[in-house]
Amino acid sequence: MSFSSSLLEEAVQEFAKLPGIGKKTALRLALHLVKTSQEEVHKLGTALIRMRDDMKFCKQCFNISDHELCNICSNPLRKKHILCIVENIRDVIAIETTQQFSGSYHILGGLISPLDGIGPDQLHIDPLVERVQRDGVEELIFALNPTIQGDTTLFYIHKKLNGLPVTITTISRGISFGGELEYADEMTLARSIQNRQPVNQYVGMK
Amino acid sequence: MSFSSSLLEEAVQEFAKLPGIGKKTALRLALHLVKTSQEEVHKLGTALIRMRDDMKFCKQCFNISDHELCNICSNPLRKKHILCIVENIRDVIAIETTQQFSGSYHILGGLISPLDGIGPDQLHIDPLVERVQRDGVEELIFALNPTIQGDTTLFYIHKKLNGLPVTITTISRGISFGGELEYADEMTLARSIQNRQPVNQYVGMK
Repeated sequence: MSFSSSLLEEAVQEFAKLPGIGKKTALRLALHLVKTSQEEVHKLGTALIRMRDDMKFCKQCFNISDHELCNICSNPLRKKHILCIVENIRDVIAIETTQQFSGSYHILGGLISPLDGIGPDQLHIDPLVERVQRDGVEELIFALNPTIQGDTTLFYIHKKLNGLPVTITTISRGISFGGELEYADEMTLARSIQNRQPVNQYVGMK
Repeated sequence: MSFSSSLLEEAVQEFAKLPGIGKKTALRLALHLVKTSQEEVHKLGTALIRMRDDMKFCKQCFNISDHELCNICSNPLRKKHILCIVENIRDVIAIETTQQFSGSYHILGGLISPLDGIGPDQLHIDPLVERVQRDGVEELIFALNPTIQGDTTLFYIHKKLNGLPVTITTISRGISFGGELEYADEMTLARSIQNRQPVNQYVGMK
């Protein structure tokens, strides 16, 4: 691409560094800003810089936060003895959006994956074990992706917590709501038969 | 979406104001910046703000520019007596990328479109007429989209320039290179027969 303005060129190059944004989309975004008011562009630019400069990670659950403790950890209405274990911040946002969980979170920051060189030491597993011992946590709900990495991480932490008086559960897997049996993949269908639930324990039926 | 950090929420909201960027993509972009170095995020934010604050429009061709005259208008190697008339900045970038045009440009800033309330007065048509008279322009090459609006604009300007010693041409339309006849739409095929070119005038054959 050939530009008549180095200011425009620089803005396009910076946009194009973002994931999933190619040169053409970057140009479209930059030309959109050309037509936007100066005030709005300042709001965008300073919002990005301020987030990166002022953001913290919650010292308890490792969620992104404005303060030392995140909104969830510092909220007295959230249960402290039930923790949901997730891989990353995006998972917290997905679960929070359902408004079905009133406990707290613990973000691992990844999954154990020897092939990618990620071992337990790079994840927030030790702080989790300390937290369970110190705060008398009663239940850990694992909400990790059902991959080899997710299962490895689950079993590793399960073993580490061996002997501690804590219940370990994992979110239920099965045919999604609205999904039809004939279109479900074999693995999901097989697992949903193995992990069948008594009808009287099934929340939707009560 | 439910956020644990108002800084993150604000960045997501600002990203989501950009065209074609929804809430989920905005979150993905913001979380990418969380993992990016502070320096890189500052570069992005300031590039956007600087572009919007310092950009100018070339007083001659209305292209986006760093100075009073754009790089193209101030380049002594570009011909001043051949102007390519385009709708917007994006068209200039597309033509410049081909490296096949050594003249200058004139950006109309839109096309005449009575249905959208855009008349000739809102476009840079009067400055074009002045430019043709003042600078002794010899040829205007129209590179507008082949729509009703594009044709209307072409005919309007053509009439306005009536009597001036300037050749008016339009970029050739036809079957695109690599396109197959049987898949071309009727309109394009019909027009490319009407506007057939003598083989000895056909640039690719020389």
